[in-house]
Parts: sequence; C-alpha cells; structure tokens
Amino acid sequence: MSLNSIFQYFVPKDKKIFFPLFEQAASNVVTMATVLVEAVNSNNPATQEELYKQIDKLENKGDELTHQIYLELGKNFITPFDREDIHALATAIDDVADYIHGAANRMSLYKIDDFNEHIRKLSDLILQASIDLEKAVKELKDLRNVRNIADSCIRINSVENQADYVFDRAVADLFLYEKDAIRLIKYKEILAALETATDMCEDAANVMESILVKNA
Amino acid sequence: MSLNSIFQYFVPKDKKIFFPLFEQAASNVVTMATVLVEAVNSNNPATQEELYKQIDKLENKGDELTHQIYLELGKNFITPFDREDIHALATAIDDVADYIHGAANRMSLYKIDDFNEHIRKLSDLILQASIDLEKAVKELKDLRNVRNIADSCIRINSVENQADYVFDRAVADLFLYEKDAIRLIKYKEILAALETATDMCEDAANVMESILVKNA
Amino acid sequence: MSLNSIFQYFVPKDKKIFFPLFEQAASNVVTMATVLVEAVNSNNPATQEELYKQIDKLENKGDELTHQIYLELGKNFITPFDREDIHALATAIDDVADYIHGAANRMSLYKIDDFNEHIRKLSDLILQASIDLEKAVKELKDLRNVRNIADSCIRINSVENQADYVFDRAVADLFLYEKDAIRLIKYKEILAALETATDMCEDAANVMESILVKNA
Repeated sequence: MSLNSIFQYFVPKDKKIFFPLFEQAASNVVTMATVLVEAVNSNNPATQEELYKQIDKLENKGDELTHQIYLELGKNFITPFDREDIHALATAIDDVADYIHGAANRMSLYKIDDFNEHIRKLSDLILQASIDLEKAVKELKDLRNVRNIADSCIRINSVENQADYVFDRAVADLFLYEKDAIRLIKYKEILAALETATDMCEDAANVMESILVKNA
Repeated sequence: MSLNSIFQYFVPKDKKIFFPLFEQAASNVVTMATVLVEAVNSNNPATQEELYKQIDKLENKGDELTHQIYLELGKNFITPFDREDIHALATAIDDVADYIHGAANRMSLYKIDDFNEHIRKLSDLILQASIDLEKAVKELKDLRNVRNIADSCIRINSVENQADYVFDRAVADLFLYEKDAIRLIKYKEILAALETATDMCEDAANVMESILVKNA
Repeated sequence: MSLNSIFQYFVPKDKKIFFPLFEQAASNVVTMATVLVEAVNSNNPATQEELYKQIDKLENKGDELTHQIYLELGKNFITPFDREDIHALATAIDDVADYIHGAANRMSLYKIDDFNEHIRKLSDLILQASIDLEKAVKELKDLRNVRNIADSCIRINSVENQADYVFDRAVADLFLYEKDAIRLIKYKEILAALETATDMCEDAANVMESILVKNA
C-alpha cells in the first residue's frame, strides 16, 4: 500500500469527524446571534428573559461541541488541516459564542430594558458575521470554492471594522450624555461584549484565511 | 541501541526535570490560595497587608518557576508530553497565580476592609480548585491513576461553574444595592479577578484532560 | 545535493522575507510610541487630535505588516526560527501597537485634555521598551550579538516592572482623590491600556529569549 493510498484511506474518515462538528458549532453561533437580535428588539422583559435563557442553553451546547473537537484532536493522528488550525478555529468559534452569551448575561443581570440603536446595530453586525462564518465553515470541507471562503472572510473583516466604529461612537456618546456612572458602566460592558464578539468572528476568519494559504 | 532504548534513556531524565517544576508551581498556587482565604477572613487591616505581601512574594516565586519550565522546554528536545501541552499547562498554572495576585493587589490598592460573603465564597472555591490542581499535577508523572486525574479535573470544572454562579449573583447584587459607583467599581474588579482565577484552573484542567486523551 | 546544502539554499531566502518585516513592524511601534509621548506632552487639543490620527494610520500599517508575516508563514515551509516563535513574535509586536493605539483612541474618545504625571511616565516607559524591542529585533537576523539581545530583553523586563509600579500607584491615587466616578473610569482605562502595552513588550522579549535558548 503506497503512502498516498494510506492518506486517502485516513483523510476522509477524519473529515467525517471534524467537519460536522465545526458546522454544528458555527450553526449554533448563528442561532445564538438570531436570538440575541430578537432580544434587543423586544420590548417585553418576560420575552427577553426567555430569550436569554435560550442563549444560555445554546452556549452549553457550543461548549460541548468545542470539547468534542478537542477530544477528537487528541485521538486523531491525521487531521484534515494542521492541528493548530483546527484547535484555533474551534477556540475562535467558541469565543464568539462566549461573548454573545456574555452580552446576553449582562443584559439579564443588569436588568437592562431599553436598548439603544448602538446595541441593536452591534447585534445585527454579530448576526451578519455569524452567517458568513457558517458559510465559510461549510465550504472548508472540500475547498472547491476557495473564492467563496475568501469572500466571507473579507465580509467578516468589514463587519468587524464597522463594529469598531459603532462601538467607539457608542462609548463616546455614553461619556458625553450619560451622567449616571452606574448606568454608564452597565451599558459600556454590554457594548464591549458585543464588540468583542465581532473581534472573535474576525479571529475565526483569520484562521480560515491561513488554512486557505496552506491548503488551497 | 534501538530507538526504543534511546527513548527509555531520555524520557526519565526529562521527567525528572519537568515534573518537580510543575509540582512546585501547583503547590505554590495552593499556598497563595490559602493565604488569600486567610486574608478575606481577617478583620485586621495590618494582618491583611502582611498577607498581601506574602502573596506578592509567592507570585514572584511562581514567575520564576514558569520561566524555568519555558527555558527547559527550549533546551530539551524530548519532553514527557507534547511541547504545546507542557507550555499550556505551565501558562495556565501561572495564570491562576497571576489572578490570585491580581485580586489581592486590588484588595490592597483599593483599601478594601470589609469582605462580603461572595468574596469569601469565591476565595474558598479558588482554594478547592487549587488543591485538585495540585493533586492532578502530582499524578501526571506516572499516569498510573488516570481515574484520579480525571476526577480532579471534573471537580475543578464543577468549582468553576459554581464560581460563575456566585460571581453573577454578586455582580447583580452590586448593581441592585451599591449606590456608590466608585465602591461598585472596586468590588466588581475584585470579584472579576477571583472568578477569572477559577477560569484559569479550568484551563489547566482542560490541558490535563487533553494530555490524558493523548497518553493514557 | 546534500541535505546541508539544501538548507543553505533555503534559509537565506527566508531570512530575507521575515527579518525585514519584523524590523518594519518594530520600527513602526517605535514611531507610534514617539507620537504618543508627543501627544501626552502637548497642551493643544488640536495638535493632540492630529497626533491621534497619526497613531491610527500607523496602527493600520502595523496590521498589514503582521498580516504579511502570517501569510509568509503559511507559504514558507522552512522558516529561520520555529514557526510558533515567528507567529508569537509577530503577534506580540502587533499587540504592543494595538495597546498604544487603544490608549490614544480612548484619550481621543474621552476628550482627555490634562494628562497627569503617571500617564506621561507610562508613555515614556512604552517608548523606552519599544526602542529596546527594535534593537533586539534587528540583532535577531544574525544572532551574532546574542549578548545585546539578552540585554535588551532584560531592560524590557525592568521597564515592565517599573510600569506595574507606576500603574498601581496611579490607580491607588485615582481611588483616593478622584471623586467623579466617570472621570475615574476614563483615567483608569487609559492607564490600563498604557500598562498593558508594556506587558506586550515583555511578551515579545519572552519570545526572543526563547528563540535565543533554542538557537544560540
């Protein structure tokens, strides 16, 4: 059996292990972002609480998926991409989930009931970036449409730049107009968690770009 | 000399280098956590200051141990586990020490003299997690009692979940009852440092779980 | 062609790729730190705004250099040092730039017009550490003056310790004397960004020390 045929034998098996896990993790992030957008556009505190609980459960599900990827990484000698890239991509997707959850958790703990346009805009941007993240992750398995992955990564980078801009404006506004220091702290922390979620989408996009460079 | 006997020749030597350093680093963290618990249960500012100074010195000692592990990693071609795992475990243990030190440093800088139940509870949880961390690290050297390591890691994960819960409750309480924004900032930062220390214990547990998967 | 001559063939080519990028990135950080020191010593808000904009542009330039290093890392099979060290050094230098930019961005967003001695001292320390960073990076390419690199790393470590001390004093002062919680938040965040910039210089120095251990 030639070395080549050995690789052909192993790689498909490992593709079957890692790609479905990545797709589920990315799709879970899209669901979390969708629920977040719903929450910040709701005016009903009871509905909001219900949605925060959903985000909480989805985050647990994401943790389990990440854990499973790490375990498979430990068990599988041959991986479809560099081990460090698989680890970094899993961590980045998990980080997006963590920051969406962190933002929702603070909204719940701080009993925020009026969301301003900045919070709504940042939540929309997270959803946009998550959708592109899922798209790109789905294309990773065959690397046939490298252009599509690259385009998604470029759009994620552009969303992250927009989020930076919205965050900076939102924080400048807070310091200009919010005279209640405790309210200022609450809003600033929620804005920071939302903005960091888009940073984590960019981290995931960077890992995928590096996978493209090495494998395409 | 067969390849096998070459490995047998090298591995014990490198075990002798890395394991004592890890054990000292973990045991140093247990001492730091013990001193922290003492400080938050003391009512005497002078005693507290003395204890903070001890934590400061212990953190320097931990830094030196971490640095030594990194240096050995650079010098030793053969390591008992994957290089990345040795690096990650050393970093995680150092991070626990850093956050215990960070919490104590803020208690000292902010001249906090009354510690609430949340701060005491989180300090207890850090001590519990540190003790399990030390136990697990001690078992790493022979991997004979894999079950014990796994059990310690599970308990550390459970402590981290409890710490999350206590932290969330503590922060919600702060925003409900603390009307002085500056006091709110002080307490929130101390709570955050304590909670992050348990996150870092979980990171260390994750690295050890991944070592088990690969080597057991 | 012997294995040796293959290496001699490849290594110089890759040295030509990576070292100029590292030198440009380090030199870019020195420029950023120089502009920062100028800004915090200026009394003219219009001048300050102009300088913040310069820092903004320099940060973009640094991002591009980092991105280029990552891309080259993906393309080049043979690298002058361990791939992980090249990645870590590029990331650490980029992090210094990010935190200088973060500090300047907050000064601008929060409309800070009076800089205290602590902020000026921390900015000076960032500049000192950056100059040593650039010196050490320039010596990396031939490793002929290992002593010089080690000396720069030691000085960076000492600067980071001084910055910790200044930061702690500055924060203690804020909590003692600043009664306006919103002003306290503004200054504390700027101090934190400045102090973290020196931490990132130390991270870069640690990577270079580890390169020395492996290659010298």
